[in-house]
Amino acid sequence: MEFFFRPRGIAVVGATASKGKGGNLIVLNLKKGYFGPVYPVNPGYDEIEGFTCYLSVSDVPDPVDLAIVFVAAHMVPQVIEDCAQRGIPGVMIQSAGFSETGTTGAALQEKIRQTARETGIRLWGPNCMGLVDVPSQWIFSTVTPTIWDTGLTPGNVSLIAQSGMLAGAFLIDLISHGTMGIAKVCSIGNKMDVDENDLLEWLIHDPDTAAIGLYLESLTDCRRFMALCRSTPKPVVILNGGKTAGGAAAAQSHTASLSAGGALVAGAMAQAGVITADGFYQLADFSRTFGMYAHLPPRTGNRVAVLTYTGAAGIVSADIMDRHGLELSQFRDTTLETLQTVFPEWMPPANPVDMWPGIILNGSKKTYETAMQAVCADPAVDAVFIHCFAGGFSLEVDLEKMADTAREAGKPLFCWISGERDRVYRFQKTAQPLGVPVFREIMRAVECMGMLLNRPCPKIETDPETAAEERIRRLTQDPRLAVLASNTGELDELVSKQVLKACGIPVVEEKQVTFFEEAQRAAADFGFPLVVKGMVAGVSHKTESSLVHLGIASDQDLASAVTTLQQTMEGRGRILIQKQVPGKIELVAGFVRDPRLGPCVMCGLGGIFAEALNDTVFGVAPLTLADALAMIDRLKCRPMLDGYRGYDPVDKNALGRILVILGDLGCAYPDIREIDINPLIMHKGDPVAVDGLVVLA
Amino acid sequence: MEFFFRPRGIAVVGATASKGKGGNLIVLNLKKGYFGPVYPVNPGYDEIEGFTCYLSVSDVPDPVDLAIVFVAAHMVPQVIEDCAQRGIPGVMIQSAGFSETGTTGAALQEKIRQTARETGIRLWGPNCMGLVDVPSQWIFSTVTPTIWDTGLTPGNVSLIAQSGMLAGAFLIDLISHGTMGIAKVCSIGNKMDVDENDLLEWLIHDPDTAAIGLYLESLTDCRRFMALCRSTPKPVVILNGGKTAGGAAAAQSHTASLSAGGALVAGAMAQAGVITADGFYQLADFSRTFGMYAHLPPRTGNRVAVLTYTGAAGIVSADIMDRHGLELSQFRDTTLETLQTVFPEWMPPANPVDMWPGIILNGSKKTYETAMQAVCADPAVDAVFIHCFAGGFSLEVDLEKMADTAREAGKPLFCWISGERDRVYRFQKTAQPLGVPVFREIMRAVECMGMLLNRPCPKIETDPETAAEERIRRLTQDPRLAVLASNTGELDELVSKQVLKACGIPVVEEKQVTFFEEAQRAAADFGFPLVVKGMVAGVSHKTESSLVHLGIASDQDLASAVTTLQQTMEGRGRILIQKQVPGKIELVAGFVRDPRLGPCVMCGLGGIFAEALNDTVFGVAPLTLADALAMIDRLKCRPMLDGYRGYDPVDKNALGRILVILGDLGCAYPDIREIDINPLIMHKGDPVAVDGLVVLA
Repeated sequence: MEFFFRPRGIAVVGATASKGKGGNLIVLNLKKGYFGPVYPVNPGYDEIEGFTCYLSVSDVPDPVDLAIVFVAAHMVPQVIEDCAQRGIPGVMIQSAGFSETGTTGAALQEKIRQTARETGIRLWGPNCMGLVDVPSQWIFSTVTPTIWDTGLTPGNVSLIAQSGMLAGAFLIDLISHGTMGIAKVCSIGNKMDVDENDLLEWLIHDPDTAAIGLYLESLTDCRRFMALCRSTPKPVVILNGGKTAGGAAAAQSHTASLSAGGALVAGAMAQAGVITADGFYQLADFSRTFGMYAHLPPRTGNRVAVLTYTGAAGIVSADIMDRHGLELSQFRDTTLETLQTVFPEWMPPANPVDMWPGIILNGSKKTYETAMQAVCADPAVDAVFIHCFAGGFSLEVDLEKMADTAREAGKPLFCWISGERDRVYRFQKTAQPLGVPVFREIMRAVECMGMLLNRPCPKIETDPETAAEERIRRLTQDPRLAVLASNTGELDELVSKQVLKACGIPVVEEKQVTFFEEAQRAAADFGFPLVVKGMVAGVSHKTESSLVHLGIASDQDLASAVTTLQQTMEGRGRILIQKQVPGKIELVAGFVRDPRLGPCVMCGLGGIFAEALNDTVFGVAPLTLADALAMIDRLKCRPMLDGYRGYDPVDKNALGRILVILGDLGCAYPDIREIDINPLIMHKGDPVAVDGLVVLA
Repeated sequence: MEFFFRPRGIAVVGATASKGKGGNLIVLNLKKGYFGPVYPVNPGYDEIEGFTCYLSVSDVPDPVDLAIVFVAAHMVPQVIEDCAQRGIPGVMIQSAGFSETGTTGAALQEKIRQTARETGIRLWGPNCMGLVDVPSQWIFSTVTPTIWDTGLTPGNVSLIAQSGMLAGAFLIDLISHGTMGIAKVCSIGNKMDVDENDLLEWLIHDPDTAAIGLYLESLTDCRRFMALCRSTPKPVVILNGGKTAGGAAAAQSHTASLSAGGALVAGAMAQAGVITADGFYQLADFSRTFGMYAHLPPRTGNRVAVLTYTGAAGIVSADIMDRHGLELSQFRDTTLETLQTVFPEWMPPANPVDMWPGIILNGSKKTYETAMQAVCADPAVDAVFIHCFAGGFSLEVDLEKMADTAREAGKPLFCWISGERDRVYRFQKTAQPLGVPVFREIMRAVECMGMLLNRPCPKIETDPETAAEERIRRLTQDPRLAVLASNTGELDELVSKQVLKACGIPVVEEKQVTFFEEAQRAAADFGFPLVVKGMVAGVSHKTESSLVHLGIASDQDLASAVTTLQQTMEGRGRILIQKQVPGKIELVAGFVRDPRLGPCVMCGLGGIFAEALNDTVFGVAPLTLADALAMIDRLKCRPMLDGYRGYDPVDKNALGRILVILGDLGCAYPDIREIDINPLIMHKGDPVAVDGLVVLA
């Protein structure tokens, strides 16, 4: 990939002297910042923008590591062949007109992919805006050269964007608004060869990059992406556009139907320690926050000191902090004493610190600095949130000094700025090289603060591969699981649960019966209350088909249930007697094989709440126990599992082990398509599978 | 209030020629825009900024309706007396140093309040930034005159802010950034006399004001505020800073403990049709959206057409829309055909419309206009969301024409803008007078769109007062409720439920028993399974005290439960036998008397989920059935109540009636402090009170 990022010479195929055209913009951008040789290629010119122009790629002299191509799509295959023949290792195709335009374009794309495969050259694009490298001031792109006017602010965040237009437009926006320093922006377009994983791997090793933000519409290889993210301490933030609806329609189990709509990818991202964003600026803001505090040690705490010039903003900050898992620091006495020195007597300092009365007495600089030093020295403060104003009210502050104080104390500093437009802009520009993330809205500032301080870090280590392999190997050899190899389609409830039990998942006591007398004997063994179910081949939703009788409390109830079921099933099914498992909390757990992600595990709130409250989480198998516990932690209903008001706390390790086993089982038997445990009842805190369904291919 | 908003002459007490001081800034601001006579008052000057200066307020000639006061706090009482004597009806005190500074300041404030009460003059402030009236270009404030530099953009949104600093700072920010047109900004400070309700009432009748946004830290009179909001079709948006923790500590019932933390005020706001915001810019953005579309007829639908120059932004918009209750329009065929005329053949148009291929063929203006006309003519489109770019890429659009098209079609238009800083700014400035809300972030644009299109409108009418009065009167005369007048403290479970039952709330079948034989007879009447409870005076949390035995299925169980309870209670309590009510859904309902809001009603998800999922809503009594149904609609668990997967749908009218009755009961008997129905079980869709607690004063 070196030739894309550090080319010793660049050919621009399709260069032109015609102003405003892409082939001219590329040359202009190279002229402004790139210091290696630039070779425009176009038979129609002798020179372009001062560079000697060449007839064809074959005529370009050494050194040349990269060709940037901007010619009509139908001409691209020939250019690629020429580049390969000339020995140019990397080609960046910025022309559009390929797979995004339908079958003809897709055929063209396939043709050049073929050439690349045969010759070993690497292709970036097509249909992309290329690369912008801010610290080097190298722009390999058709992006408008007015981007240079406001100055390219270097920073340590690199961005990867699948959309070309977006990458260009957003870059212009970010750069001209001065809110964010950038290392590299990579626009990957149709990613026919070089994809997000190739670039991510490069950026993980790029010393200029401390945090990586991605906008993607599809993940080429989600498992490789996860592995890359887990391999590095560098924070990765992703905005994943579009929902993955694939496979949902045909789903047989509850688990599979829940796996649509992005929940699965969201689970995979969380498992890999990736931060997810929902909007472009949120992606940028999360990325720059993590870029600025990339080296902050993990679990620094969530207690924040708020220094504000208006009590109102302090109150609103505290309210928003509460929703993002942040707390107001309880200052120690010495902090309060120091604060009191700059405040009028009538004002006992508190957090949020309303600085205004102090500012009136001592001016803004002294008041802010004194407060800053006091809160940074306070062990009860994990982070500082200052509110600044640019535009009157004598509210000037020395941001550099405050940034130094915070840095020396090892405490992340966040800043909200408002005021007059031009002064706000200058403030933002000043703050950027000081490493202080500045925000225009308190809400976003607090959101970023929460994201940073509450990040699940250190990233969860993957299992030693051998451990998962060994567990899976043992499952493949278990004779009790032979049914998984010899059957197809849905296994009935009884057999499904026998499989789960053999793997170590606790299941309800149950017995299949044919006659009422058998049912009576089972009842005598289990004790009332009981559940009586009808098993009919092909009917997996028993409740909806009136095949479940709950709360059987006597022989009389039992007789009536058995008779009713026999009538309902018209002699086609069998009867299952189960001990009724009492428990207030019903969860669901399951396995699904996703076309892209492969074996995945699900856990969620079950029963009547499952669909209403939409509380399900996914993980990618095989899981470690830590992965599984982290999944459980992501459930909205998690507080319910901790036990209160007399209820038993749930044994989370037991629950986690069930999730690990479900994943292992799916890995061991590739014919398993879906597994559904619904409900998984928490009985005195212990999970028990009450219904189970295994679906084979 | 006329004298504050339309004064025929203004005295500035504490005016000074000293640059930068508040007393000078007020005069400068008046000089710039106010056309009536200005009378600076200061014994130290002959003239200030070209105005003749007066020795004291008594010397000021006619006409003078308003005095703006900016002198040291200790001098204010004398000034107020002078103003009253001089016959000046309105005084705006912008000085600080009153109740916000402690007891001395509070005493000063009380002193001037006394003068006002005696003389009938009205006081605005103190500790405030006064009034800015943008359409009139009148600024009665110490705000920095640089605010005039960028031009005051008139609009139809008026803002009321409790915090002075915030009002000034935020105004400077909004005005200089050009994102928002403003009618009036009122900074009310300590609101010792003129409060948010006085101003709200004025603004409701102000022809320049179409929407009202408020930042408040306290509601002076929440019920009057609600009545005002319900009296007008003008949208009201509120940011309510700070939580109301009052009373929570001493709460005896579940209902009362849930009423803390702002939930109660949030319920009151929803009931009054008020939109709530969480941040300052969100408040501004909601307000300007509602201001621009104040006359949009209600329930216009939630189907949106998205026109974008980058597919990525279209996808992200659709994802965010999904979370805000908005749908992508399904275009009719003629719309698709019209779109196809400007698109290349390979691109079948869809929603979101990715305009880029069309722009390449036909330029941005023609493509956007054709698309705009097509989607505005489509009956499947309720609103249009366009993405614009300012800064290259040949992406100029004719916003005025598009705004006209949308206006003629009666469809609200929203716009996301990004690009080069100065061009973005000009775009925003242009859009403001066109009445198109423009946003810098897709997330915020969609949030505002969702807020507008899904607003609960028309505002719910209040009960004809007589209906509620009549219901309440009947309750006060019901002899079965005599116990409420004659008792104090907690009523026991049996008596509590007798009260609820007498009011028409369905309660569980139950019987108090003393001997086992009585219990057996009750069991024979009710049938198993049963619940057996111990009632001990002063113990309201029975489950935690092991006083509840569930699932009693036989005489044997019953005997054992009764014996155990008798032992637990050591002869101090009584035993209650209840029919066990099966039901998957447990709610809670209750009544609480709030120190500020008075009688309030609560409803929420109950059982183990109550605290974990924090799903409770409040209303202010007396409720109409419509109020109660709207409360139920606000529950997060609402989808559960609709019935699915074989469960019975909940009878929402029956549930609503229970809430109405709880409110009426609390209104009828002022001694009722709290009522708690927990659980309220949905039995075959019908709510049944299974446990009840009435707490009297």
